[in-house]
Amino acid sequence: MIDILNQHRTVRKYTGQKIDSNLLNDLLEVTCRASNTGNMQAYSIIVTTDEELKNQLSPAHFNQPMIVQAPVVLTFCADFNRFTKWCEQRQADPGYNNFQSFMATAIDAIIAAQTFCIAAEIAGLGICYLGTTTYNAQEIIDVLKLPELVVPITTITVGYPAVIPDQTDRLPLESVVHYETYRDFTPEAIDNIYSEKETSEFYRQFVSENNKETLAQVFTDIRYSKKNNEFFSEKFLTVLKKQGFLQ
Amino acid sequence: MIDILNQHRTVRKYTGQKIDSNLLNDLLEVTCRASNTGNMQAYSIIVTTDEELKNQLSPAHFNQPMIVQAPVVLTFCADFNRFTKWCEQRQADPGYNNFQSFMATAIDAIIAAQTFCIAAEIAGLGICYLGTTTYNAQEIIDVLKLPELVVPITTITVGYPAVIPDQTDRLPLESVVHYETYRDFTPEAIDNIYSEKETSEFYRQFVSENNKETLAQVFTDIRYSKKNNEFFSEKFLTVLKKQGFLQ
Repeated sequence: MIDILNQHRTVRKYTGQKIDSNLLNDLLEVTCRASNTGNMQAYSIIVTTDEELKNQLSPAHFNQPMIVQAPVVLTFCADFNRFTKWCEQRQADPGYNNFQSFMATAIDAIIAAQTFCIAAEIAGLGICYLGTTTYNAQEIIDVLKLPELVVPITTITVGYPAVIPDQTDRLPLESVVHYETYRDFTPEAIDNIYSEKETSEFYRQFVSENNKETLAQVFTDIRYSKKNNEFFSEKFLTVLKKQGFLQ
Repeated sequence: MIDILNQHRTVRKYTGQKIDSNLLNDLLEVTCRASNTGNMQAYSIIVTTDEELKNQLSPAHFNQPMIVQAPVVLTFCADFNRFTKWCEQRQADPGYNNFQSFMATAIDAIIAAQTFCIAAEIAGLGICYLGTTTYNAQEIIDVLKLPELVVPITTITVGYPAVIPDQTDRLPLESVVHYETYRDFTPEAIDNIYSEKETSEFYRQFVSENNKETLAQVFTDIRYSKKNNEFFSEKFLTVLKKQGFLQ
């Protein structure tokens, strides 16, 4: 059964088959059984299937075609709105408009998202995470009408796979896993960890196509540049303030 | 197979049985197959089994007994240290010392954590998340010797269950799931959503034992108070600055 987890790949192309509403409901029920902070269930999931709304969401995800093509788009949100409203109706003084509460609910939103993804894969569906969610959170808030204390954290597109892509490579386990305490990396360790990736034909071609000298430069200059990261950091911090999580 | 996800419960008491190192390795391999931002694998997992180190971690988790009792403690960290070192060795200018990069790696750490939890449950193990990780991140950094650009996000204790507890309750699905766009809650909707929980014998006793008038007050006055949330918000923001994620 662990094999299904080992078979994971990101699926970006879907057949036209709709997801049965009973199946979707079952997957969402399973998702809500996942661990969450203090059983407050302080997160929310917006299920978008409407074509017009998907079209409105699309620019926030830089028009990646999955948003419009997938039968279902799920936006997982940090959400202390419902819980705060409940407290206010019960003579209780809520204090969740702060960064620690944001972290707790953002973590819970991601735990739910990954639970959904695994359940969906077990059911034969394919998923894709969209990291653009924290880049353009404000645009998503506007389309999905998210109130104060609700912030989108990640988006998943889901549908039946039209193509099962090859699995992507992974670094050796010791790149990610440390035993007992953190073992920082020597220059030689870095060389060893990345050597298989860097010498592969696939990545050599990728570097060449991008007109760069090293694979790392493709990341720093094109995919995840300092300038963009800093721009989107300011933008997301502004959203956290506006939505009330940095009081 | 989805049944296993539906059977989830937090397990806080473990038998003395150790986790076979091959099994642990398989679970970690599966974990590293999970989705991650740009396949940078920018997160890390610290596997702690040493009794002395578990004792040192314990106060950071407010001496919850799982830390010392569980055979394995896993600390999942946001980590741009390795990736940044790689960039620096490859004539590339890394720009990951900012909040957006922190969000990306924190999300990836949680996706990995939940993948591990589900794989572990499939293998018959029991897990418990410790939300105390973001409260006392600095103390954990000190024990686990985490360098700059590494911040602990969550901790999981894992072992063979000594007791399988009852499942905890969940709110009705419509509390968490919104269709198409967010449907904000009227006072009546809040009453409906919480009525089953609030009228249950279990929670009525819980409120009474805590000498409170409403269940919400147990959360706001005792479990997750405004004062504590604000204190730990400042503390965690200080850690993010010190570890280099708010440059």
